[in-house]
Amino acid sequence: MNAFIIAIGDELVTGQSVDTNSAWLSDRLLQRGVLTKTHITVADDLAGIEYALEQAGLLGADLAIVTGGLGPTADDLTRQALAKVMDAPLELDERSLGRIEAFFRQRGREMPDANRVQAMCPAGAILLDNSTGTAPGICAKVMGTEVWCFPGVPREMKAMFDEQFALPACGEAGRVILTALLHTFGAGESSIAPLLGEMMDRDRNPTVGTTAKQSVVSVRIRSAAENHSAARRQLDDTATEVKSRLGKLVFGRDEMTLADAVGALLREQGKMLATAESCTGGLIGKMLTDAPGSSAYYAGGWVTYSNALKHDQLGVPNELLEQHGAVSEQAAIAMAQGALGHSGADYALAVTGIAGPTGGTEEKPVGTVWIALASRGEHTTAEHHLMPFDREAIRTRTAYTALNMLRVKLLGE
Amino acid sequence: MNAFIIAIGDELVTGQSVDTNSAWLSDRLLQRGVLTKTHITVADDLAGIEYALEQAGLLGADLAIVTGGLGPTADDLTRQALAKVMDAPLELDERSLGRIEAFFRQRGREMPDANRVQAMCPAGAILLDNSTGTAPGICAKVMGTEVWCFPGVPREMKAMFDEQFALPACGEAGRVILTALLHTFGAGESSIAPLLGEMMDRDRNPTVGTTAKQSVVSVRIRSAAENHSAARRQLDDTATEVKSRLGKLVFGRDEMTLADAVGALLREQGKMLATAESCTGGLIGKMLTDAPGSSAYYAGGWVTYSNALKHDQLGVPNELLEQHGAVSEQAAIAMAQGALGHSGADYALAVTGIAGPTGGTEEKPVGTVWIALASRGEHTTAEHHLMPFDREAIRTRTAYTALNMLRVKLLGE
Repeated sequence: MNAFIIAIGDELVTGQSVDTNSAWLSDRLLQRGVLTKTHITVADDLAGIEYALEQAGLLGADLAIVTGGLGPTADDLTRQALAKVMDAPLELDERSLGRIEAFFRQRGREMPDANRVQAMCPAGAILLDNSTGTAPGICAKVMGTEVWCFPGVPREMKAMFDEQFALPACGEAGRVILTALLHTFGAGESSIAPLLGEMMDRDRNPTVGTTAKQSVVSVRIRSAAENHSAARRQLDDTATEVKSRLGKLVFGRDEMTLADAVGALLREQGKMLATAESCTGGLIGKMLTDAPGSSAYYAGGWVTYSNALKHDQLGVPNELLEQHGAVSEQAAIAMAQGALGHSGADYALAVTGIAGPTGGTEEKPVGTVWIALASRGEHTTAEHHLMPFDREAIRTRTAYTALNMLRVKLLGE
Repeated sequence: MNAFIIAIGDELVTGQSVDTNSAWLSDRLLQRGVLTKTHITVADDLAGIEYALEQAGLLGADLAIVTGGLGPTADDLTRQALAKVMDAPLELDERSLGRIEAFFRQRGREMPDANRVQAMCPAGAILLDNSTGTAPGICAKVMGTEVWCFPGVPREMKAMFDEQFALPACGEAGRVILTALLHTFGAGESSIAPLLGEMMDRDRNPTVGTTAKQSVVSVRIRSAAENHSAARRQLDDTATEVKSRLGKLVFGRDEMTLADAVGALLREQGKMLATAESCTGGLIGKMLTDAPGSSAYYAGGWVTYSNALKHDQLGVPNELLEQHGAVSEQAAIAMAQGALGHSGADYALAVTGIAGPTGGTEEKPVGTVWIALASRGEHTTAEHHLMPFDREAIRTRTAYTALNMLRVKLLGE
């Protein structure tokens, strides 16, 4: 079975937004053994959408998934284009209209007239309920292709896909394809590739590749087999081999983030963490609290962006700040110890640095970062890093490096 | 003049990576007055790449830009596919081979044999030098379309495009197209559309459309004219009209974020802000400090994730927390007042809520959020919100809503 994915939107084709829906859908389909052959993006334009739908048929796709163009405004044209290629009239679906009216009523508003068009459906197609918004989806058969149309808003699209999408019954079963991602931190792609060696040859199954994103290098594994258990076994064997070659560099699999990995270790060991952030401005706390239940191991912390807060709240001596500066080993250590003392946590991470683009000096250029880790009853350690990146990358990498410092500590030696 | 953009890569079409190159290129082309009509993504597959190149010609694109498939490995097939649709042999370009060898020599390594293929060029095409990597680009004419091929690595692609790309001389000069985005917060798309009314008609110039992302509704304006000054005048007139219709809902234009808008107002008025975050865990601080120079108006704050920190650091009375709970109007107000007092700032924002997915009760379901704004010498105000979203969306929207509360305050009434 093979799929064709269509994204619709002026903002996508002109580059004002990046289309993330198509990659998400391809990944979801691959999990079910369906390989996507083509993505196509067209404008909010009747002829363009018709062209894209026709290509799916011409290329013999079993399945086409469309996102976008289902809103209530005049530039939403997916249902009209679909009706045109199906050569079917648009008809009002009373049940769907009732659901849209109820959606507004529950929010204490009356349905604007504009939303009525969202309940129109090409004859012979089916409207799909939207549990998180007003735009129903559409499922239809166009030539030999089963076409599923979802709203363009990622949250609504994902909910509707996960709740309602089912693979077309295509007769022959496809091969089963399973994938896994193993995430590493602490080494670059060119250091990891030699460790994986022949595992990365293109003609192997499972295939193994690497992708780097914001200093996290992820190892991609794709396993194909006749049935699920064989694909799973190959996948797990390869993942085990990758882990044994990369050791502690690997921090997690699939959806797991570095903050999740740190959280799991803290939870296991029954320890609490506090943070004192200067240059990252709250990013480490944000990453830790992205995970539900993080209050079990994260007490909270301080965003001591100003020197006054560093002194008043964390007890960093003013003389220290004057003598060594706020971006210094001494300041980082004092911040970490202050956070440990004032929070009562078991560990405290502190970061201070120059994220730029201005504020650098010859002695302390942009990208200079000090990270300290204070541990109850132990010596406080500090690390110096020089990160030759832009502001955003410096901040992200600083947060990751701090979390990784604690991860390595928690793993023990 | 219209463009067709092709992205090549197994990792893109299977969803393991998101294609950001195509949006970047569309945006760059639009700045030069070229409208992109279609993006297409295909696998590392000869037939797929040929199909994509042929579509550019069939659709009458003046210009096709291809990214990816120029590397040295067996799955890099762009040059072969291009040679095939041009019906031209691949020939070795000695000058280019010399450059690739020099690239390795400068790094103290010998060129691997595999890289030799990168110096092969379809007869009649031109190789483009790569100043940041080994893969040369290719420029060729295929039927009526000028085809430019760039490496898939974004850094290399962007450098090569900016250094070497020139619009094809197409006889007639293209129209100039300028775009703008006006960002709003506080109303949904279906409330904004009626305010814009006939401005959103599809056949107008400039065109006006809306896009919603994480509760920010952005108004897209696209102006086309014979020359730059006419396009600019139309664009500015339309932007002025949109602003006058939407009033204070508009917080910024193009790259400006809500945190930037708040920062600009604080800077203008010479005021300092502090934050006390519970459910957002540092996200508001992170957003504020994304902007360089934010220390001019952001003192910092507290991530009081635990009740102990709310009490010890911000002075929220334990009896208050016991009586009303940490997610309450009273707690939000006490947190904001504590942050104001302890920081010496002019304003303090405090947020506390239930981000879920667990922790909700009948009285306080997931999505219950209290936001308080304390202002020096004034009454502290608090707002209650119920956000029926997932954890990530609740946190993002809470941060935005808090920032917007201060923005509206700073704008005055």
